[in-house]
Amino acid sequence: MTNLTLALDAMGGDHGPHVTVPASMQALSLYPSLNFILVGDESLISPLIANYPADLLSRIEIIHTTEVVSMSDRPVHALRSRKQSSMRIVLELVRDGKADACVSAGNTGALMTMAKVLLKTLPGVDRPALVSALPAMNDKPVYLLDLGANVSCDSETLFQFAVMGSVLCEVVTKQTSPKVALLNVGVEEIKGNDQVQQAAQYLLDTPQLNYTGYIEGDEIYNGDVDVIVCDGFVGNITLKTSEGIARLLISQIQHSLTQGFFVRLMAKLIAPRIKAGLNQMNPDHYNGASLIGLRGIVVKSHGNADQTAYLQAISLAITEAQRRLPEMIKDRLESILLDINN
Amino acid sequence: MTNLTLALDAMGGDHGPHVTVPASMQALSLYPSLNFILVGDESLISPLIANYPADLLSRIEIIHTTEVVSMSDRPVHALRSRKQSSMRIVLELVRDGKADACVSAGNTGALMTMAKVLLKTLPGVDRPALVSALPAMNDKPVYLLDLGANVSCDSETLFQFAVMGSVLCEVVTKQTSPKVALLNVGVEEIKGNDQVQQAAQYLLDTPQLNYTGYIEGDEIYNGDVDVIVCDGFVGNITLKTSEGIARLLISQIQHSLTQGFFVRLMAKLIAPRIKAGLNQMNPDHYNGASLIGLRGIVVKSHGNADQTAYLQAISLAITEAQRRLPEMIKDRLESILLDINN
Repeated sequence: MTNLTLALDAMGGDHGPHVTVPASMQALSLYPSLNFILVGDESLISPLIANYPADLLSRIEIIHTTEVVSMSDRPVHALRSRKQSSMRIVLELVRDGKADACVSAGNTGALMTMAKVLLKTLPGVDRPALVSALPAMNDKPVYLLDLGANVSCDSETLFQFAVMGSVLCEVVTKQTSPKVALLNVGVEEIKGNDQVQQAAQYLLDTPQLNYTGYIEGDEIYNGDVDVIVCDGFVGNITLKTSEGIARLLISQIQHSLTQGFFVRLMAKLIAPRIKAGLNQMNPDHYNGASLIGLRGIVVKSHGNADQTAYLQAISLAITEAQRRLPEMIKDRLESILLDINN
Repeated sequence: MTNLTLALDAMGGDHGPHVTVPASMQALSLYPSLNFILVGDESLISPLIANYPADLLSRIEIIHTTEVVSMSDRPVHALRSRKQSSMRIVLELVRDGKADACVSAGNTGALMTMAKVLLKTLPGVDRPALVSALPAMNDKPVYLLDLGANVSCDSETLFQFAVMGSVLCEVVTKQTSPKVALLNVGVEEIKGNDQVQQAAQYLLDTPQLNYTGYIEGDEIYNGDVDVIVCDGFVGNITLKTSEGIARLLISQIQHSLTQGFFVRLMAKLIAPRIKAGLNQMNPDHYNGASLIGLRGIVVKSHGNADQTAYLQAISLAITEAQRRLPEMIKDRLESILLDINN
């Protein structure tokens, strides 16, 4: 790969540098052309990197700051007052072309608001969207957006999300004309609210996208479609509900397998198998949501990500940077919008 | 229990009389004071009851009709054209006081539209809601509404749903002042859309309800609250997403336990335990959604319910009839609305 520089909000997330720093060192050894700018409290970061070999350390720059965006900061407050925060600095590094992408595990609302103001949206994009790849049947990812960046969306915004989601899926998974669906309460034409029905009309009028129609909640993880579009209210609740029920089911199965000596023994013997079955859908085992529609790459990690999960967020940022995601979305969106206007 | 008569849409659902008739016979032997009016094609129903003892048969009446509402009938079409349908007749039996409640596994949209027109809403209720008890942690049910009867809801409708859901939970589970929450994209006051925020304000101003604030998708199944309110778009997708991911997870675990002779053998030995863990969250093992806010009791069964699942829908109708649910909701709603207006 060509030389890439990622800016990392080293302070973000529940575990701060204790997760972000080891994950970045692991990424450096996996990707020889990768460089990091770690932004955060140098007195916390330095001891964590002291024992790594010199060739890895030569690819790290630390920008020291002690200011952080807290989880309880309101977005507008963070924007106005946290001017020296690690979160803001990584966004500025992307804006100024000093980093190819940034990753943060901090306050989502603040990250979105700051990113929109500092990086600006692409031409033709009214609002950035938060999107993530969820694990569906047969190890296929399904891209769901918006995940909460926009609680209410008009039909045009949903349409833009469909275009952006489709391009993201193409760019990351390298499949051509991914199947795009709208999340709805039924598959019949008459179902849903005005926004969804109007967005469906726009999509039916856009042959450049492989729009397949409505999809219901129980089909999200079927693997039948590649991109699913909804407003941020629905998307956020859908994602979190999925995570909640997966965790509950996993805990109940684990609980049922610890009752009684014989059951416990047998369960232990086949534990790796049970674990494999459970982990596939375990929300703690995938990570990394992208803020798309911006003029720069911003990846949001789960706040509670461990080192392995955080490394996945870093890998996602690398993939998007290598494939120049914002330019791809911009070009594709322009060509579609141009076609529509002609 | 006092004598109760249920009207059953014997034709509704994927399996029609082959499920509804045996389930009703089973219910008759479980509940000695129960009577059924089975509405549907007598030539299909009669052979299915021929071998049951006379004392059960004496508690069955059959109303013959061959017209059915199909799954593809639009609600308004069903209302206008399916005047002799089994679905319409059971609703008329409730309206005319000839049955204490009705159960149908047919077309949900048609059932709602017909029920609203034939039974009418209670005073103070603008729109009926579809509600179901979902299995949460510690075998506690959590009531989620609306499940799709109303795709868009203003804040007042959400407020009415909260009142109705709370009364339903009190009546069915016999717990006092159940905890009521609004489903939202965050727990902070500033989160969500206008409808949810305004509904929260109404609920904060209503001390008669035990309103506990916002709840996120991953907390639905925690067992921390008893009633969760959202619009029908969000509720339908939340319910179906839960069902989809539960089925996927169950199938993946089952699949992982059939790979390799040793694993298969061990898994077989502890199969009942694994099954118990899986079944608890399996959407195929609970059944019965109530249309509430009407002047009569209407229970909707899953279309694909088997005999056991359909029996659960019948049991739910019995509980609601015994406890006079519509009157309870009416009284409670009146007293709350009166308090608010004073």
